[in-house]
Amino acid sequence: MSYGELDNLCINTIRVLSADAVANANSGHPGAPMGMAPVSHVLFNRFMRFNPKNPDWINRDRFVLSNGHGCMLQYSLLHLFGYDLSLDDLKHFRQVGSKTPGHPEAADTPGIEVTTGPLGQGFANAVGLAIAQAHTAAIYNKPGYDLVDNYTYMFFGDGCLMEGIASEAASTAGHLQLGNLIGIYDDNHISIDGNTNCAFTEDVLKRFESYGWHCIHVTDGDNDLSAIDAAIAEAKTVKDKPTIIKLTTTIGYGSKLQGTHEVHGSPLKADDIKSIKEKFGFDPEKKFDVPSAVYEHYGETAAKGAAAEEEWNQLFAKYQKEYPEEGKDLARRLAGKLPEGWEKALPTYKSTDPAIASRKLSETILQKLYPIIPELVGGSADLTGSNLTRAKEAVDFQPPSTGLGDWSGRYIRYGVREHGMAAIMNGLAAYGTIIPYGGTFLNFVSYAAGALRLSALSHHRVIYVSTHDSIGLGEDGPTHQPIETLAHFRALPNCMVWRPADGNETSAAYYIALISKHTPSVIALSRQNLPQLENSTIERAIKGGYVAVESEGAQVTLISTGSEVGICIDAVKYLKEKHNVVARVVSLPCWEVFDAQPKEYKLSVLPDGIPILSVEVMTTLGWEKYSHEQFGLNRFGASGPYKDVYAKFEFTPEGISKRAIATIEFWKEVTPIRSPINRAFAQLI
Amino acid sequence: MSYGELDNLCINTIRVLSADAVANANSGHPGAPMGMAPVSHVLFNRFMRFNPKNPDWINRDRFVLSNGHGCMLQYSLLHLFGYDLSLDDLKHFRQVGSKTPGHPEAADTPGIEVTTGPLGQGFANAVGLAIAQAHTAAIYNKPGYDLVDNYTYMFFGDGCLMEGIASEAASTAGHLQLGNLIGIYDDNHISIDGNTNCAFTEDVLKRFESYGWHCIHVTDGDNDLSAIDAAIAEAKTVKDKPTIIKLTTTIGYGSKLQGTHEVHGSPLKADDIKSIKEKFGFDPEKKFDVPSAVYEHYGETAAKGAAAEEEWNQLFAKYQKEYPEEGKDLARRLAGKLPEGWEKALPTYKSTDPAIASRKLSETILQKLYPIIPELVGGSADLTGSNLTRAKEAVDFQPPSTGLGDWSGRYIRYGVREHGMAAIMNGLAAYGTIIPYGGTFLNFVSYAAGALRLSALSHHRVIYVSTHDSIGLGEDGPTHQPIETLAHFRALPNCMVWRPADGNETSAAYYIALISKHTPSVIALSRQNLPQLENSTIERAIKGGYVAVESEGAQVTLISTGSEVGICIDAVKYLKEKHNVVARVVSLPCWEVFDAQPKEYKLSVLPDGIPILSVEVMTTLGWEKYSHEQFGLNRFGASGPYKDVYAKFEFTPEGISKRAIATIEFWKEVTPIRSPINRAFAQLI
Repeated sequence: MSYGELDNLCINTIRVLSADAVANANSGHPGAPMGMAPVSHVLFNRFMRFNPKNPDWINRDRFVLSNGHGCMLQYSLLHLFGYDLSLDDLKHFRQVGSKTPGHPEAADTPGIEVTTGPLGQGFANAVGLAIAQAHTAAIYNKPGYDLVDNYTYMFFGDGCLMEGIASEAASTAGHLQLGNLIGIYDDNHISIDGNTNCAFTEDVLKRFESYGWHCIHVTDGDNDLSAIDAAIAEAKTVKDKPTIIKLTTTIGYGSKLQGTHEVHGSPLKADDIKSIKEKFGFDPEKKFDVPSAVYEHYGETAAKGAAAEEEWNQLFAKYQKEYPEEGKDLARRLAGKLPEGWEKALPTYKSTDPAIASRKLSETILQKLYPIIPELVGGSADLTGSNLTRAKEAVDFQPPSTGLGDWSGRYIRYGVREHGMAAIMNGLAAYGTIIPYGGTFLNFVSYAAGALRLSALSHHRVIYVSTHDSIGLGEDGPTHQPIETLAHFRALPNCMVWRPADGNETSAAYYIALISKHTPSVIALSRQNLPQLENSTIERAIKGGYVAVESEGAQVTLISTGSEVGICIDAVKYLKEKHNVVARVVSLPCWEVFDAQPKEYKLSVLPDGIPILSVEVMTTLGWEKYSHEQFGLNRFGASGPYKDVYAKFEFTPEGISKRAIATIEFWKEVTPIRSPINRAFAQLI
Repeated sequence: MSYGELDNLCINTIRVLSADAVANANSGHPGAPMGMAPVSHVLFNRFMRFNPKNPDWINRDRFVLSNGHGCMLQYSLLHLFGYDLSLDDLKHFRQVGSKTPGHPEAADTPGIEVTTGPLGQGFANAVGLAIAQAHTAAIYNKPGYDLVDNYTYMFFGDGCLMEGIASEAASTAGHLQLGNLIGIYDDNHISIDGNTNCAFTEDVLKRFESYGWHCIHVTDGDNDLSAIDAAIAEAKTVKDKPTIIKLTTTIGYGSKLQGTHEVHGSPLKADDIKSIKEKFGFDPEKKFDVPSAVYEHYGETAAKGAAAEEEWNQLFAKYQKEYPEEGKDLARRLAGKLPEGWEKALPTYKSTDPAIASRKLSETILQKLYPIIPELVGGSADLTGSNLTRAKEAVDFQPPSTGLGDWSGRYIRYGVREHGMAAIMNGLAAYGTIIPYGGTFLNFVSYAAGALRLSALSHHRVIYVSTHDSIGLGEDGPTHQPIETLAHFRALPNCMVWRPADGNETSAAYYIALISKHTPSVIALSRQNLPQLENSTIERAIKGGYVAVESEGAQVTLISTGSEVGICIDAVKYLKEKHNVVARVVSLPCWEVFDAQPKEYKLSVLPDGIPILSVEVMTTLGWEKYSHEQFGLNRFGASGPYKDVYAKFEFTPEGISKRAIATIEFWKEVTPIRSPINRAFAQLI
């Protein structure tokens, strides 16, 4: 493929537009957009398939900018190719309320696939997008119907490669032989601290070879468009390996300071921008000036993309006739609908049913939903037998050549890679045909905190199956026993944290998690057996909190979650028998869902006039929101059989009763005792 | 070196002892101890230098079991070599209150260097220990005085290698050419999910070659003791690279189920243990049976270690005479004392001093302490110019061959590797001669959550310099703006979280962080300028909370931290002028330190009778502990200039005043208004 003047004009337009926008905002990163303009031009204009008028077309090629600080590059491209992002939007780069925030956010901007900026996340998201493509293709493609055959392209820099999450995802992608994944590594030798030789001297391509990637080096990424073109073309032909193209570039190409860390994260000076414009043949006095030839040229590419989608729509229409069942199923998934009546499969329990660990209850649910919700794609970070995340008949998602599964498999072996798993799940969710869930111990969801945060910020429906949820895991001890973990996740906006107390509550957790299209869920599950509660039903539990034991004339409300609800119920009996004290119990499996209920309901659960004591075997932090006094564990746990550990910390009917009585005494003198549901003012949301 | 019957007896003793202890606990991991018994025997008996009677001897070789679930291996070794760990302690493996918890904990057990179990952490800790050795040697060794020349050995498994944190640390170790670091990779092909071929098929040695490691493969780790010996001996001769020895072993060697994942994490059956004992020539009916020949043999090794320490003590005595200054300094460090009068260097400020960003205040402190506290070793995860963590005259810690620094350098370029940095700092702190601090944006300390947790659990004095602490960072937007972060860290036991409001508070934060030998500190610092407060002094701030504005007849207390304290003080004026409302302000830079003050003091800061409103630009979760009403941000932030962002969310004198008035109104009807300092019962600690 030969490249000429028009190509250079396009490339230089991206450069000056990006520099202008950063300067206009007086904030941002001009270096990466200027250095990566050539490859982005070649990729978007020659290789990528997309329709700017419909950023949701399922068979579009995906593009991920893992070095998200370079987002002016992406915003420039989206604008120039005709996405719903105006020149005015670019002029409001990094301003409050704009569609062009400081880092790309999927929930805010058309054409942004995933939220990036926290380094390494985009890399792993792209692996998830590629897995989703391979899986969806295996499910739906038929002879003559390559319904789903898109590629996933990603850009990433030295920073992404230094992050462990990228290592985890890269090793996974190599193992999975994801030939549909093409990564372009911006080898510019610069990070914020200066030359990368101060901290990053590994042989990147050798490392990727060790993971099983196909490796290419383009030595002149600034000028050699043909070499860039050839590299991408070669990568597309490699079907059994992901490809990394190491592209040696000059950061801030065109600037007087090109090749230095000074162009990385600060606006260029006005005189520098003028000199760049002169160098590239632009009017140095004009800002945000786009040559019409560029709009026209890119407009043609966009038109081809629109035509491709139209062609695809016809293919899909034909497919729906020939394969009505699959066609209906795919259409349903694309509409974001769950199968009709799926919720009937959720198990319910009576109080006479045996005590069962909630991780086991979760297994039963996943098993029952497996045949009914085909878009559920599960996995675990090497704890399948502990997290109980795998349906019996599940096939592993594996390259067929391994003999361990195939591309249609719905169970992913993530290995011991929690952070990578979570970010891959974000990519799976972003693709549009899959609902991902993944298991690990609750304590090690913390390893994935960076990705969980982006599940929430990006509105991804991702389910974190988080077993071994407390000191109740026993012998593994303090290194594995969460104390701060639920407080952390409860403090995260747009994240549901469930800690079900029994079977019906566990079903409720999955019900809400699955119908909440724009919110991730962390479901904390016990290792130990839990009794089935008398008053629990799915209908009650889906309100996030409900009365588990009502008692006329109650002197104290015990509010609790998960494994402690049953102990609180025992404490009610103990209090009555030993102290003639009347107590009631509230189960609060999900704070966020309870918060969303009408105030009257919440006040009926936590009424005025009765002091409330919270009981949970982890930090008390945050429980003041729902209670007057708190019984918890503001220290690390202990290694031992779980009943001994519970006894050591007094999480017994006696221990709870002692504190319930102290609570009643202490609050006697206050009038009125107001439910904490009452607040002086509403929170900003 | 030739090995014989006695060696096999030692090895098999480790195996059966470990299997017995796991079976006795009915919980634990027999597979790794049985598979790694041969290499541990060769390493501990032939190569390692240690004195079991003094586990703190500074020049001991360090041993890290990164695959901490195999801790019965380590406990068996510590017992057999004569550390203060009895056979009875082994019989109480995984019991409440024992010295043998389910995973190794440095704070609990003599001879355990670092707390491991969460996979990958130990690997990175070992890199920190090796850096500490190289640095300490460069500072103190003199011709004829190799005072510090120990090696760091680590064991790790497939699980550790899959974790991103190990990749980060391995790349760093390779860059730093740490010839004193020798890692032994237990290549047993098994993880919990079964054969590693389901998720982990990378070429490990090639990967480590790419990082710059020396690589060796021992193909028969079960039997070929001479090859193991030769590999370790070879590794010790490689001075300019860390070494990885890939040791192919059989997990659970000797068991009927050897080589399967069934021996990984469950006790062996009684008949299996009997058959193992018969196979190895032990009495199948006896449990915890140690042949006296083993005690004797290992006792000789231990005696050699004791002699080596004695020799070292004499060398150090001589050194102290010849190099009195260095000798005194090292002795001081080993005693865990800071230089006399160091705190006088902490800067103080008057309210007339200009407004300064607290990250900049932190820089001034670090600059002033640099010449005074030589054990301060800093660094940043590639954000030096933003975190402001480097003293002007600092030399980088780099291999001299790079030309970028030397081994005596006190500034570490961690690269974009937050999790690795934190775990390396844990290793630096564990070594015993260094106080580490490291910088990143507060939001990305979350990437390091797994390691921060272990800083706290292991009682490491590590300082997390955490800049860009809120929406006040402005344009970078929601991906970089912490919301849940401080709540997370405040919920973590044994972790101090500081958010200073001005210069004196920043000095106070460093003062307490440095004198707290057994607790990590997260110091959250602003990007934007903060005014110097009228009533702030170091003396007041080191109480964790104090009255920043007292007002007679106050109707409301505003309690706040960091950048919002100054806005609260402005709100006091606004309330008086516009509404004739009298308010007072409390600054609470560190909850944990405030909590430790006497109750009378706390009640003087947060007195009864006045409702309290908390103000902090992040989650309100947890603030109920100190306030009746909370003004915060329970949603993600926004990208824009920081003043616009603050205005959008109403963190202005007006916005605070509105809520203060609502608070006063709302609490009028309650009597008494009790300070939240009053509680019904004391928490367990």
